Amino acid sequence: MTTSRNSVKSHGSACIASLCENIKTSTFKQDVLQKKRNAVLVDGVILNGPITDSKAGEKFVEEACKIIMEEIIQKADDVTEKVCEWQAPETLKKILDLEMRDTGESHQKLLQLCQDVIKYTYEVSPVFLLVEEAVIKKMIEFIGWEEGDGIFNPGGSVSNMYAMNLARYKFCPEIKEKGLSGLPRLVLFTSEECHYSMKKAASFLGIGTENVYFVKTDERGKMIPEELEKQVQRARKEGSAPFLVCATAGTTVLGAFDPLDKIADICEKHDLWLHVDGLLKKCYSAKAAYLFQQDKFYDVSYDTGDKSIQCSRRPDAFKFWLMWKALGTTGLEERVNRALALARYLLTVLNSLFP
Amino acid sequence: MTTSRNSVKSHGSACIASLCENIKTSTFKQDVLQKKRNAVLVDGVILNGPITDSKAGEKFVEEACKIIMEEIIQKADDVTEKVCEWQAPETLKKILDLEMRDTGESHQKLLQLCQDVIKYTYEVSPVFLLVEEAVIKKMIEFIGWEEGDGIFNPGGSVSNMYAMNLARYKFCPEIKEKGLSGLPRLVLFTSEECHYSMKKAASFLGIGTENVYFVKTDERGKMIPEELEKQVQRARKEGSAPFLVCATAGTTVLGAFDPLDKIADICEKHDLWLHVDGLLKKCYSAKAAYLFQQDKFYDVSYDTGDKSIQCSRRPDAFKFWLMWKALGTTGLEERVNRALALARYLLTVLNSLFP
Repeated sequence: MTTSRNSVKSHGSACIASLCENIKTSTFKQDVLQKKRNAVLVDGVILNGPITDSKAGEKFVEEACKIIMEEIIQKADDVTEKVCEWQAPETLKKILDLEMRDTGESHQKLLQLCQDVIKYTYEVSPVFLLVEEAVIKKMIEFIGWEEGDGIFNPGGSVSNMYAMNLARYKFCPEIKEKGLSGLPRLVLFTSEECHYSMKKAASFLGIGTENVYFVKTDERGKMIPEELEKQVQRARKEGSAPFLVCATAGTTVLGAFDPLDKIADICEKHDLWLHVDGLLKKCYSAKAAYLFQQDKFYDVSYDTGDKSIQCSRRPDAFKFWLMWKALGTTGLEERVNRALALARYLLTVLNSLFP
Repeated sequence: MTTSRNSVKSHGSACIASLCENIKTSTFKQDVLQKKRNAVLVDGVILNGPITDSKAGEKFVEEACKIIMEEIIQKADDVTEKVCEWQAPETLKKILDLEMRDTGESHQKLLQLCQDVIKYTYEVSPVFLLVEEAVIKKMIEFIGWEEGDGIFNPGGSVSNMYAMNLARYKFCPEIKEKGLSGLPRLVLFTSEECHYSMKKAASFLGIGTENVYFVKTDERGKMIPEELEKQVQRARKEGSAPFLVCATAGTTVLGAFDPLDKIADICEKHDLWLHVDGLLKKCYSAKAAYLFQQDKFYDVSYDTGDKSIQCSRRPDAFKFWLMWKALGTTGLEERVNRALALARYLLTVLNSLFP
């Protein structure tokens, strides 16, 4: 990738179609390149035109709206319709094809999935819990872990709060019942370039914003591991209790990735929980024994209520699942590659305009 | 209302149409009653049939889907379309008719509103913030307060956490920076019948579940004020710091309303913050000076980021606002009255079946 970027840069202008000869492309790409005289190719990605068939997409949305009208709006008004088609989660798993594959599914298949999801949506939505479970399982596999757990939250700020809470629970499980009163000062570390939600979380969780120790970053906005080590030493000397490092994978302004391996070594040395904002690491469920009713007439392992700080939740995993089903892992990968290629192309253009 | 319920009960059967003669009804109701031989009237509410014209509703949804298709999906694919139609919040206020009135708006007007909302939705959505502001202002007026503030949250559990956090901030603003470490044990009071999110919130906020003191309830599930007084005394004797009473307006199981006036007197006496789960009371913004950028090129008072523990939020106020616009205050009132009348009718039927 570096080679092609540099060769493009050396031309002092935008990437041009002739580059494609040096890059292994599929028959499709060659076809497109032959048809488009001004095709722009960066790192093997053709940047011209839309990547999806927008007319087919519009047709799909129209069909989906029709299903919503028939299955939800009209049936809800019809007293002869059943209130729900109850099925146990295990049966639903068999009915629904939850698996996310490398290639995307057909629109027809996706519409069928939408219809099934609508049909079996009732009583705190087992369908959405199964979908969430499938997405989390796939993501854990994808990262390469053998086990793990997770939950979809209303956004990154709340996710950072969860991470802080789990780290605190691991550091001292009794805090759940006893609270922080009378304990030594808990301290966490994050970079100067971290998301502002870290301070909000520390305030909300009763840790206090002054107990967020900010670690210096280098000129690219990455946390400096030696500075982290210094801050941990400082906290120990003060008699406070370091418990967490919040690293960032993609800072807000510079998009910097903290050096996770080096930070992980420091965390291991000092027995600190490592959370990566943007990714998840070591984030196992606290298995908190809250006041949760377990007397349902089906497998209660699908009650995720004790994993969430919310009661009812929006089915946030559903849209992600449906997109994964539609594009497949390969389609998602192509989108990421295209975004990176577009960024490189922009840089090339800027460099040629302002040499 | 009690009279008509009792007279119905004395018949030992479901309410019947003949009752309508004793109750002032509109011409519409009389028409319906004349047409429907078996019309059921409870407390002036006709219970038969749907309250809305479902065919017109379906037509409305179809039209709204068409707007979404044309304004969002097709325009997003069209490179000749502008990315956004920027307008300052004050101008948007004039363009959009945000006010919620007693009577509902026409479907045509509602579709126009949807179109305008779509047109001006961009950059953390000033339209949705204006909508949220309008809804909160209306609700504050409705309760009869002269001032107030609020925010839409992802659910009641998170709202209870906010309440706990605000109460704590009022009790001791320094907790935000310093945290709870080294402070006396903070104690809050709620009824045995409270929502389970109270314990979750106390755990999450670092207060500790053991510092939630549960107050006994009477046979209807209402908090007993004398028991609250005892618990506050107990906490004081223990040397802990009582700071909050969480009353409930509509408990989960029995739907009980705690005696708010008596509880408010106790709160006043002991200088405790009173939160009512289900309603809002004394819930002014903490005006927390977080790390928020105020260098936008329009009125920054529309940045609600410092009021929320989230960064981006879903436009939760929008659906409520659109419903209020569609039904009007009177329409919403009718829905509540109908729900109560249905509950009374069910009770009557049950009493007649199991005398």
